[in-house]
Order: sequence, then structure tokens, then C-alpha cells
Amino acid sequence: MPRKILLIGAGKSTSYLLDYLLEKAEPEDLHVTVGDLNPGSIADTTKDHPRCSVIFLDIFKVTERQKAVVGNDIVISMLPASLHINVARDCIALGKHLVTASYISNEIKALDPEAKEKGLIFMNEIGLDPGIDHMSAMQIIDRIRDQGGNLLLFESFTGGLVAPEHDNNLWNYKFTWNPRNVVVAGQGGTAKFIQEGTYKYIPYHKLFRRTEFLKIEGYGNFEGYANRDSLNYREAYGLQDALTLYRGTMRRVGFSKAWNIFVQLGMTDDSYRIENSEGMSYREFVNLFLPYSPTDSVELKLRHYLKIDQDDIMWEKLLELNIFDSRKKIELPNATPAQILQKILEDSWTLAKDEKDMIVMYHKFGYELNGQKKQIDANMVAIGENRTHTAMAKTVGLPVGIATLAILNKKIISPGVQIPIKKEVYEPILAELKAYGIAFKENEVPYLGYNPDSVAS
Amino acid sequence: MPRKILLIGAGKSTSYLLDYLLEKAEPEDLHVTVGDLNPGSIADTTKDHPRCSVIFLDIFKVTERQKAVVGNDIVISMLPASLHINVARDCIALGKHLVTASYISNEIKALDPEAKEKGLIFMNEIGLDPGIDHMSAMQIIDRIRDQGGNLLLFESFTGGLVAPEHDNNLWNYKFTWNPRNVVVAGQGGTAKFIQEGTYKYIPYHKLFRRTEFLKIEGYGNFEGYANRDSLNYREAYGLQDALTLYRGTMRRVGFSKAWNIFVQLGMTDDSYRIENSEGMSYREFVNLFLPYSPTDSVELKLRHYLKIDQDDIMWEKLLELNIFDSRKKIELPNATPAQILQKILEDSWTLAKDEKDMIVMYHKFGYELNGQKKQIDANMVAIGENRTHTAMAKTVGLPVGIATLAILNKKIISPGVQIPIKKEVYEPILAELKAYGIAFKENEVPYLGYNPDSVAS
Repeated sequence: MPRKILLIGAGKSTSYLLDYLLEKAEPEDLHVTVGDLNPGSIADTTKDHPRCSVIFLDIFKVTERQKAVVGNDIVISMLPASLHINVARDCIALGKHLVTASYISNEIKALDPEAKEKGLIFMNEIGLDPGIDHMSAMQIIDRIRDQGGNLLLFESFTGGLVAPEHDNNLWNYKFTWNPRNVVVAGQGGTAKFIQEGTYKYIPYHKLFRRTEFLKIEGYGNFEGYANRDSLNYREAYGLQDALTLYRGTMRRVGFSKAWNIFVQLGMTDDSYRIENSEGMSYREFVNLFLPYSPTDSVELKLRHYLKIDQDDIMWEKLLELNIFDSRKKIELPNATPAQILQKILEDSWTLAKDEKDMIVMYHKFGYELNGQKKQIDANMVAIGENRTHTAMAKTVGLPVGIATLAILNKKIISPGVQIPIKKEVYEPILAELKAYGIAFKENEVPYLGYNPDSVAS
Repeated sequence: MPRKILLIGAGKSTSYLLDYLLEKAEPEDLHVTVGDLNPGSIADTTKDHPRCSVIFLDIFKVTERQKAVVGNDIVISMLPASLHINVARDCIALGKHLVTASYISNEIKALDPEAKEKGLIFMNEIGLDPGIDHMSAMQIIDRIRDQGGNLLLFESFTGGLVAPEHDNNLWNYKFTWNPRNVVVAGQGGTAKFIQEGTYKYIPYHKLFRRTEFLKIEGYGNFEGYANRDSLNYREAYGLQDALTLYRGTMRRVGFSKAWNIFVQLGMTDDSYRIENSEGMSYREFVNLFLPYSPTDSVELKLRHYLKIDQDDIMWEKLLELNIFDSRKKIELPNATPAQILQKILEDSWTLAKDEKDMIVMYHKFGYELNGQKKQIDANMVAIGENRTHTAMAKTVGLPVGIATLAILNKKIISPGVQIPIKKEVYEPILAELKAYGIAFKENEVPYLGYNPDSVAS
């Protein structure tokens, strides 16, 4: 009897996941059922695989969903994060393990006692970020602790970017994932972190002016801006006494400074709609955020308003996006500024079919060992193959697949709702990821504490 | 039989209102009942007045409240805006007129058909702003229309400031009303208005850098920043075709530029709490919003972060508030940044007992008459007597009192939920306000349209 896996939701991020599961299907004796609202979109190589079935699945139909779940040993939910809870409740009721790549919601968390009682493993946050960040960080943190070291500083950055060979626009950026998340990134709350024992707060309108610089050997320079809450995993990682805790998002140097123009203008706002947006030109859209003048051009008003010098490269970045074009129409009715900005950016930043993305991750670990202060920096770079087999899909999908198999093979055995921070979990997964080229390079560097010289002014 | 008035809520703004009603009590044959949760705080001159009764009233006790309402002819609610609805429903049930100085809520608006059916007048927004602004603007708008003029532009500004003789700090500002409203002013949504036929949007973090300048003969220069929604009264005023609609708040010139420092730092944020705020010094509070440095002072970091030149008067304004003091403690546990900022400002900006406040209002009316473009500017200045008899209490309380009497005397007769924009309402009230020294000065000025030269860069 093969072990049976139900994969719910076969979206963008499942290319590598499906490849992995089907590659393992014969040697590991697996059967994979893919349930999706739109089975027609699934590749023939998947559909025709002898150990794969594809079914139509509307997860809002309870009996249909439960019928799909009941015959399997484990369920992988790749649905949007808010929908996992429906599947999770079925897994409790029907006694199935569950794997997701999403943040644990309070609803999912509340299932922990029941999951433990029934001996079920609900593994969450096992994609890239969250996922590989947890595992790679905890591996080094545990090693430092095992040596008797005491953690002083932890910083962690992740970015989804375009691969160097296709990095050919002035922003050094293309959309490799959900564009909407990029446009509204940083909204919804003040960024909060700790630097050298002091809480620090950055409001949204300053977020892209308080960046930190990072360098990856062979890949050049990057910058990072703060995520909303860097303190989320303080307890989970056991870093209550660390003096510096910072989590951020990586971009190429100069991106944030130019992106700040949109923030300052108010173009990233998603909280109100512009009534007459449909027939509006890109130029008129920009003018909504500038003072009226009977004589001055939109360009001059913008330069003056945000004090952009005439030789500032930021200006070339704006021109590259055609935002002053008076013929290009927005074509979105009643859209929010954020939706319109996304449309304008998609004209320029959409990854072409043959173009590759790149994932970068960078951790810093400062610690004290035998009276000496030390620091380890670790980084990981993954390059995609094409627009379907992206580095994003690889780094999200492979850990999910590996964890699923490790649960079936009883390499991961502790029950309950969890994230991958236990040795039992991260050791086998990181080892297998290495075989797929996902590995961290570590460097010992001098410990400088939180170093203001690497912070943009 | 005297006509009976119930006044609910005897807070700060009722000094002039009570004086007015009691002054009119004998000649107009009135009896005034004051219902308050804390009757002890009411002045003896009020309590001992032969035509006044003071009762304890908890408006959340329904039968108590209805018992208070039933014996009266008209009710004035000076409660916080959200509580009017309780009183309004009683007035419908028991057939009483109602007067409030607050914005009409949707709940109150929904009572319009019932009020009309029962012939009841529910007069709202009849204080200063909203109130005197509606009446004074509509008087001039109606006059322009009666002459055959066509409105092109309407701008309206109001400010609560300190009187010139006590205007003795660098900010030219003291708290004369609810300090909290001043600290969070402009939050909760993008400012939206129309300039020369084009919608314009200003995000909060730019609000205090997009000011307009105004001058009042004999009182000097002022500036105005945009209110959240300048388009609210477009239909009510009949200004659907006006090319420019702008409503704003007045301050002395230079206030907004300095206030912007707090906005940029994130100190006006009221959306999260700072756990360890109680024992924190003012200096430590400022440092929460600045990058860490092992060497640089809080002062240098702030200057550098916000690019404040060493000879900029803004810096002196900050020093005047003692925000860099390392001994002064916040003393508020778990406070939001906005609450802490309010505390710091109250140290410096509290009106002394003998100090006077000042209300300023400024309207601009641009119109076309017989093929000619014209403009009328109108302004009103009111100075308070002391900290109890403030210009704010006068300009809020008198129109409420005058409207109440006008309703009893059947000078105002149209029933329904309304604001004071009808001639029947504004004419008698503005005429009587004049006798109390609240009057507008009008000036014909050249029509410039929306004039960018009066806008700060």
C-alpha cells in the first residue's frame, strides 16, 4: 500500500514541490492526489504520472473536502494562508498530519492540544521565509549554544529579486512573486526592533530611508529595510537576552531610496479609491499627489516637492517607468493608488518567460564565547531556472516536500502545531536541501555589535 | 408656564451657553434644567439661579434619562458626539426638539423621517466648526447667488489658538481645547480636496508640508493645512460645480513645519503602546525613533535624520519643549507615542488661568458675476476672557443657545434632522451673534483662482 499524500492548491509555488513528490513517488512508495479548483491548469507530466491523481476540489464544499482528505495519510495545504484552517479542522477530525508554508494563525495555534492528543504533526512555516530562515538560523544558534556561546545579536534578511543575468533595469528589481505584496510592503504598522538593548520604532514613511547594507561574495551589494515586527520569534528562538534583533527585506542598493518617492507621494496607499481612475493617464495619476499650478509641469512640481536634484539617478528610475506618460491610461476603474501603482510597475517589472529570479538570505549572529565577542554571517543564494521553475518555488516547495516525506518516514515525530525550529526537524531537511543546491555559506567576521556605519543615512 | 430647556452635559464648552440661557431666562420666560454626571462641578451662580435646576443624570440609565427629558420642551445635548443618539431617540419617543454642536452621525441622520413626521427640529453642527462656518459661508454664498453669481472657489479655515497678548512661546501655540485632538490631527485617512477642477490627495506624512498662507488685518499671518475631507459639504452647500474646494485648520506660520518633526519621527502615532514608557525619560522617548549609535548624541542623530540645520528655528522650538531632558520622566505606563507626546506638550502649552484663547476663521469665495471673476475673503476673530470663558466656549455655546431660543420662539420652524444652512436658520443667529461681538469682516480681493504663490513650498 503506497503512502498517500493530498496536495490542496496547485498554484505558482508548487512546481518544485510536485516534481519532488513525484520523483520520490516510486522509490518511496507514494501516491499523490492533487486537489485544485482548476485542474485543467495542471501540467500533463503531472496528470499523466502513474502515481498521481488530479481531482477537482472546491475547498468550501465541506463534504467534498472531507472526502478528499479521508483516504490520505498526510495533507499539504498550499492554499492562501487564511484558508488553511478549514483543512486543519478536517485533519483533526479525520486524524491526518498537515504541512503548510504559512505563518501559524491563532486559529491554527488553538488546535495544538487536539493535535498532540491525537499524535498529529501540524508543521507550518516550512517554506522559504518563513521556513528556511527558521531552520538555517536555529542550526547556527543551537551550534553556538552547544559550544557554550551566548547570543548577543541576531539579524536576518530575505529578498526575492531578479537573477544577475536578467537584472537589466535601473531599479535592479522585477516582480518574482505577488506584486501586490511588494507595493503594500511595510504598511499596517510601525516597524519595531531592538538595537543594542533599546527598542526602536520606524514609521512607514521613514522605513525606506533607514536601510542597512549587506554584501554577498560573488553577488555584490544589497540593502535591507526593517520588517514590521522583528520580535516575533524572540521567545521561539530563545533570544530574550539578545541586545539586537532585526528582521528585514533585501533589495539591491538604491531601490529603497527610489521607492520612497512613491511612499512620500502617497501612491502606495490602498485605503481609498480614486473614482475616475479608469480613463486617467499615468501623468494625471502622478499629478493627483502634487499641488496645483497653472504654469509648472508635473515633472517640476515633483522634483521641487521631493527635492530631487536634476542629476539624481532616482529621476532616471521614474522616467524608466513612464510615469509621466500622458497617453498611457490606467484602465482600472475605481482603483486604489496602490492598485494603480502596481499596474504601472507591472508594465516594466514583469519577469519575461525565460528570465530567472533569485532568492537571497542573509543572517548575522553575534555572540560571546569564552569572554570573546564573535560574529558569524551566513548567506544563501538560489537562482531559478525559468518563470515557472523559480528560485521562489524551489525554496518554498522543497522544504514542504522534504518535511512531508520526513513525517511519513517518521524522521519527524513530535506531534503538535509547530514551526521547524527543533533539531529533529531542521537537521534532515537542511541536509537534503543541500543536495538540491540550497546551502548557506558561513563567514567568521569581527563582532562590531549593531554597526551604524553599515546603516544608510 | 415657562418654556423648559434640558441641557445635558455641563462640560468646558457650556460656560457661555449657560450664561446666555440664564440671562434670557427672565425676559424670555425660560426654565433651564442642567443634567450632569457630576453636578458638584457646576458653578454656584448657576445652581442658585432661580430659573435653574441642577440634577444628577447618568445618561446610560434609560428611565432616569427619559424622566429628565419628558418634562421639557427642548433638549440641548453637549455630551460627547457618540452619545447623542441615546438622547435623540428619547426626543423622538417623547416629542422634543434637540440641539447639538456635533457632526450628524449616520444614526442621527436615520431619524430624519420620524422627526419630520412629528414636526421636531433636530438642529446639529451648530457650534463653531461645524456651525458658525456653515452659517457664515452660506450667508455669503446665498448672497452671491442672489446677485446672479456663480461660485468657482470655496476655501474655509478655522483655528483655535492663543490670544496675541499671551502668544509667548516659539510655537505661537497653546492648547485651548482637547489636546488629544491636536496631537492626532490629520490621522485616519488621506486628505482629499479639489484644486482648479482636479482632485488632490495628501498623505498624512506630507500634510504639514503642504500649507497655505492667510493674513488677517490686525492679527498678522497664519497658515492652514488641509482637513481630511474638504468635499463633505459639496452637495449641502450646492458647490458641485466649484473648481476649488478646500477646508483647513489654521495655525501661526511655522507651526506646521516644526510639528512635522513629530510626524516624521512617528511620535504622533496612537496605534501601539510602548511597554516600558513609565520610567522612561523624555530623551529616551526621542531616542526610540532614532537609529542606534555608540557615539552620536540624540541631538546629532535627530538633526542628521531630519536634516535640520544648526541655525534652524525649528531646533529652538524643540529645545523649548525640553524633549532632550534626561531627568524628566514620562510617568505614563504603557502609553502610545501620541499620549506621551501630549504629556510633553502639556508641560509647555497649557493655558494659564488668566490667559486668553483666540478663535480665527477665514473663508474665500471666488465667483463669476456678469462675466467678471471676483473674490470675497471673510474673516472672524474672537478672543476669550479667561480660561473658563474661552473664545472656544463662546463661539460653540452662543449659537447653540441662540438656536435653542429661536426654535422655542418659532423663528426656526422647518422640522427634521438638519444643519444650519437655511436662511431661516442662519440669518437670525448670525444677527444675534453680531451683538455678542462675533462678526465677519469682508474684503473684496482680486480673483486669482487657486493661487499657488500662497502655498508653502
